[in-house]
Amino acid sequence: MKRIYLLFCLLLLSLGATAQRPSPTVVARSAFPSVDQDGRVTVRIKAPDAVGLSVSLGKDYPMTRDAEGVWSATTDPQVEGFHYYSLKTGGLSFADPATRAFFGTGRWSSAVEVPENPAAAAFYTPRRDVAQGAVRSLSFYSRICGEFRRMYVYTPAGYEQNPGTRYPVLYLQHGGGEDETGWIYQGFADVILDNLVAEGKAVPMIIVMNSGVAHPADDPAEDAFDQMMTEEVIPLVDSRFRTIADRDHRAVAGLSWGAKQAYDLGLGHRDLFSAVGGFSGIIVIGAFDVRNPGFRDPEKFAAAYDGVFRDPARFNADYHLLFISTGEAEGNLLLQMSDLLRERGIDNVYYSSPKTAHEWLSWRRSLYEFAQKLFRW
Amino acid sequence: MKRIYLLFCLLLLSLGATAQRPSPTVVARSAFPSVDQDGRVTVRIKAPDAVGLSVSLGKDYPMTRDAEGVWSATTDPQVEGFHYYSLKTGGLSFADPATRAFFGTGRWSSAVEVPENPAAAAFYTPRRDVAQGAVRSLSFYSRICGEFRRMYVYTPAGYEQNPGTRYPVLYLQHGGGEDETGWIYQGFADVILDNLVAEGKAVPMIIVMNSGVAHPADDPAEDAFDQMMTEEVIPLVDSRFRTIADRDHRAVAGLSWGAKQAYDLGLGHRDLFSAVGGFSGIIVIGAFDVRNPGFRDPEKFAAAYDGVFRDPARFNADYHLLFISTGEAEGNLLLQMSDLLRERGIDNVYYSSPKTAHEWLSWRRSLYEFAQKLFRW
Repeated sequence: MKRIYLLFCLLLLSLGATAQRPSPTVVARSAFPSVDQDGRVTVRIKAPDAVGLSVSLGKDYPMTRDAEGVWSATTDPQVEGFHYYSLKTGGLSFADPATRAFFGTGRWSSAVEVPENPAAAAFYTPRRDVAQGAVRSLSFYSRICGEFRRMYVYTPAGYEQNPGTRYPVLYLQHGGGEDETGWIYQGFADVILDNLVAEGKAVPMIIVMNSGVAHPADDPAEDAFDQMMTEEVIPLVDSRFRTIADRDHRAVAGLSWGAKQAYDLGLGHRDLFSAVGGFSGIIVIGAFDVRNPGFRDPEKFAAAYDGVFRDPARFNADYHLLFISTGEAEGNLLLQMSDLLRERGIDNVYYSSPKTAHEWLSWRRSLYEFAQKLFRW
Repeated sequence: MKRIYLLFCLLLLSLGATAQRPSPTVVARSAFPSVDQDGRVTVRIKAPDAVGLSVSLGKDYPMTRDAEGVWSATTDPQVEGFHYYSLKTGGLSFADPATRAFFGTGRWSSAVEVPENPAAAAFYTPRRDVAQGAVRSLSFYSRICGEFRRMYVYTPAGYEQNPGTRYPVLYLQHGGGEDETGWIYQGFADVILDNLVAEGKAVPMIIVMNSGVAHPADDPAEDAFDQMMTEEVIPLVDSRFRTIADRDHRAVAGLSWGAKQAYDLGLGHRDLFSAVGGFSGIIVIGAFDVRNPGFRDPEKFAAAYDGVFRDPARFNADYHLLFISTGEAEGNLLLQMSDLLRERGIDNVYYSSPKTAHEWLSWRRSLYEFAQKLFRW
């Protein structure tokens, strides 16, 4: 009986211990923000004299103050994945100092990761038995934008040790309010590729990540992304890295706003790209909705991107891969887009990330699926 | 007369335009924090319903609220250079969302740069006529610490294009409360070396930056930095990069707490290092003060670091460079240390950064001076 009681206590203890776990995003071994088994996030912060603190994660959750001046709030259950959040007081919104800072929502933001089960998370979890590639931060002067910029370049394991080997290149774009750091710090693109390559599931490739925010030096209201990428970034990457510098070995993908940029770049430059991936973003023809008349109008559709869709047979021969993905919780807009393209004879691959929303877990999984299909033609 | 009036207006306008400039650290073209000609920092933030906001930059400055709910404060004049700061309300301290986030003070922090004149700042300003190196973020598993860690590795311009060339290596450490990102994002180590190498003032070298916070997997109270560096990091760097893997081509330096780590590593491993730099930090013998009995006691001094100082002639022959630097505003403690070492027959080079305090401008300048002397033996 005593033994059963002891077991019961141990069971309770172990449940207690696993009930709330620190988010993987915390700094300095902070115990908060924590996440429970149901995805509820608890934020806690000491602020003895603060008033009206709240946590903003999808919606605002008022925090309550205990006798020691520690404020806390627990959110509704969140879907698995990566969520930016803020603290608020008196109309002021700021990052929780307890987490690492991620560039998102147009600023350095705090974030919580609601973990999925470890087996599912294995594809973006670093592994000791896997050789790691490297991510370079490369500074370059853009004459078009009139500024120094940084790009991130992932080179796969073995890049240094095999100076005779050349690699295909994937250009990969972040979403709105984010920058070139997103695919590494939120997206784990390097870990995903390391693991895929080690398992023989993806071809070793270089990944190039740039900020999608690019304006001409003389006109900050105009967009210079296309010009900067085609005239400066791609030539620089091809001169500086051991790339295979042809369209068959060059792909572009992006998420959300970056998906639009990837479609524009990839479909707009048939001479440069042979594969395009759009994660949680649409091909914009006329207006920003696949249900809009521009996309539905056969003439406008055929005229888009210099007529890239006009001859479906040619498109399907030229483009080895058109990949469209979404988070399941985002709805069926992108499924419609995929179907509509297929109806028009445009081959494409559709992927829906189970349960996830418009956030980085959808995009890690999208990259995982997309990368396995790349450069196998 | 009209013309003089016009000139006068233009002068006023230009004075007005230069009176307050956004800190180079702002995000999203924010106009604040701004810095005036005297180094006063103005912080401004909208928070209609906040109470008792203040700016903490060296000391606390209460902010005042205008009719639109915009709070602002202007600090006393700050010395030129890089300063972390926080916003505070009700016992809560947090980062100003208007600046990039820098890992310092144990968390992702806001910071302001009080610019020195552009000519003086040229050595850490990117230049279009200079070839840029690259900074890699390298993930590795430390068996000693039982965790995946990231190190930053700078390779000089030409590293990729010259696969037959091997390079000397500088191991470079951040200060307390910072991490492996500090020397790039606060210190501009990559830009400093790019510029020095382009001018022929420094030998092209690899720079390796690790977090100095390292604990054995089974005992978070113990320190494992020395063991991790000597048994894991150095062998990994020598196997993965084209280094010249001998003591003559290996140096270590650090700032503040990292200076102590650099002295411990460099003086403690004569077989591994032949040059040591300490920026704003002391050689700790017995206690953390050069005026302490341990450092002053000839016996303790001679016994330190396995007797490295016991035979000054041998020390001076073995170590090509012992470099000691400080910010002028920090006082003369390190000058005393340099003199004391010289009295004992230990050659060293002393550098004092004009006017600056215990902050990154002192350390950028220290690196600039130190790097020019490295690997010229």
